[in-house]
Amino acid sequence: MYILNKERIINILKGLDLVPIIEKGFISYSNGGSIVPPIGELTFDDPPGDVHIKYGYIIGDSYYVIKIASGFWENEKYGIPNGQGMMLLFDQRTGQPEAILMDDALLTDIRTAIAGQICAQRFANDIERIGVFGTGLQARLQVEYLAAITNCRQVIIWGRNENKMNLYKDDMHKVGFEVALGNSPKEVASKCNLIITTTASKEYLLTEDDILQGTHITAMGSDTPGKRELGPGIIEKADLVVADSIAQCKERGEIACAIKDGDTSLDHIVELGHVLSGEHPGREHHSQITVADLTGVAVQDIQIASEVYNNYLERKK
Amino acid sequence: MYILNKERIINILKGLDLVPIIEKGFISYSNGGSIVPPIGELTFDDPPGDVHIKYGYIIGDSYYVIKIASGFWENEKYGIPNGQGMMLLFDQRTGQPEAILMDDALLTDIRTAIAGQICAQRFANDIERIGVFGTGLQARLQVEYLAAITNCRQVIIWGRNENKMNLYKDDMHKVGFEVALGNSPKEVASKCNLIITTTASKEYLLTEDDILQGTHITAMGSDTPGKRELGPGIIEKADLVVADSIAQCKERGEIACAIKDGDTSLDHIVELGHVLSGEHPGREHHSQITVADLTGVAVQDIQIASEVYNNYLERKK
Repeated sequence: MYILNKERIINILKGLDLVPIIEKGFISYSNGGSIVPPIGELTFDDPPGDVHIKYGYIIGDSYYVIKIASGFWENEKYGIPNGQGMMLLFDQRTGQPEAILMDDALLTDIRTAIAGQICAQRFANDIERIGVFGTGLQARLQVEYLAAITNCRQVIIWGRNENKMNLYKDDMHKVGFEVALGNSPKEVASKCNLIITTTASKEYLLTEDDILQGTHITAMGSDTPGKRELGPGIIEKADLVVADSIAQCKERGEIACAIKDGDTSLDHIVELGHVLSGEHPGREHHSQITVADLTGVAVQDIQIASEVYNNYLERKK
Repeated sequence: MYILNKERIINILKGLDLVPIIEKGFISYSNGGSIVPPIGELTFDDPPGDVHIKYGYIIGDSYYVIKIASGFWENEKYGIPNGQGMMLLFDQRTGQPEAILMDDALLTDIRTAIAGQICAQRFANDIERIGVFGTGLQARLQVEYLAAITNCRQVIIWGRNENKMNLYKDDMHKVGFEVALGNSPKEVASKCNLIITTTASKEYLLTEDDILQGTHITAMGSDTPGKRELGPGIIEKADLVVADSIAQCKERGEIACAIKDGDTSLDHIVELGHVLSGEHPGREHHSQITVADLTGVAVQDIQIASEVYNNYLERKK
């Protein structure tokens, strides 16, 4: 069994084009080519934290993959990253451990940012200005990964903590983005045609009336029952709602909240893999409002872990 | 993070008395002192195999634990053990990885054998003869672990493969047991007042009429929906039915089969931790038939992993 540390993983990542791999994963998921059981979850009260266990396999591939990712929100007090985790690969034919990727949640961060990039490319209109809620790692990565698909470098950020907003502004300036500070989520929504929500909010940040025609929203902060960023009516109002996994979004994320509100059924929800495979057209008009609800699917973990490990084996030869 | 290989784990195990630790785990589980979500499961068709992910934590302890254990039944063709797996410990306050115990399922085998020992000690009458179904590793370990609690060294074995039965006989002779080969499960049941079922059978092996008064059965082979060793009516007929976890036994194991048959509700099922804590008396008369349905609970894994790792840290000082 091989153990790959984070430095090695970072080194391998430099040579990889992961977008097609992640897209293939979503397609496989939506077409029934993969086995992905419900997410395992542990929650902790004191100190507060949660652990997600995502696992499964693509039928006929070499490995099955188990990903463990946790968020403990008070870690930063002690100088420890909030996100922790690793990915484990096992032989699909024997169950033997193949590799442990000690990525400290890095691969989760990347595959999540890539899913955001895929959604922005598929569903947003020409991006005029990028609105971001939250000032954490995903608020950065989601924007950085957009550089590959748009020339837009204008961002409006909104977060609860002004210091963190300013820090975000400085950091993103270094990677080529001009960041303005938003006064409210509503203001951000009034000026941006792509909105990315990355907070762990338990109360919604946007109301139905805040959303302009032609907007695309990628909602990726809410991934656990209890978290919510979009207010009542937004999912119902949207012309197109895309879920990374319909089964998961019934249980968690914005779609789950809308179902709880009684606002929507699952009938008009499209799965991302079905758009990527061409079975569904995606956005059809410039004026449509589109929402992508991303809760994170194990196929993303399976794909990124397998690609990193296969590349490691390839280099060893 | 520490990685403990199997040799080191075996070495640490020599100095440990695990029975009180495992008992404490069952009590904590039944008294609500632990968080144990439903088992995660992956199944494979070709080659056939299954993976169980058991995880959770005891509230207020140091670690949360994730255990991965698989069985791929064709591995032995290739000289690879059917059972594979590892246990992972993480800090309960930060989510940081603490240790990986590369035990290749050894700790699962041991904690399972200990649960059997606990049940035999609590529920069996004076053991006259031990009946065993199956010829694999648990068929051996369950009996070996009985040596600590009984002077009985008489075993009758039944399995589908006569070569394996003879191999079992020879191997168990070396560790002090006299083994006779049974012609049928029924014959075994007619001669033994303790029966341990350890097969992966999908069809039941014993019928209601096969079970004599005063018998205790520890049924531990059936741990996945679809597996079954005890026939219709046995659970209903038993005077005392003990589950390691009532929640789990509703979904898998012999009790789940009995519920499916319409034979029983959960009303008369007692949880092992409630007997161990003294809340339930356990066996009350010599003539009673008792059944323990063991599906394997994450608290066993949490307890054995924590004990091994704490002992490792203690020795390092």
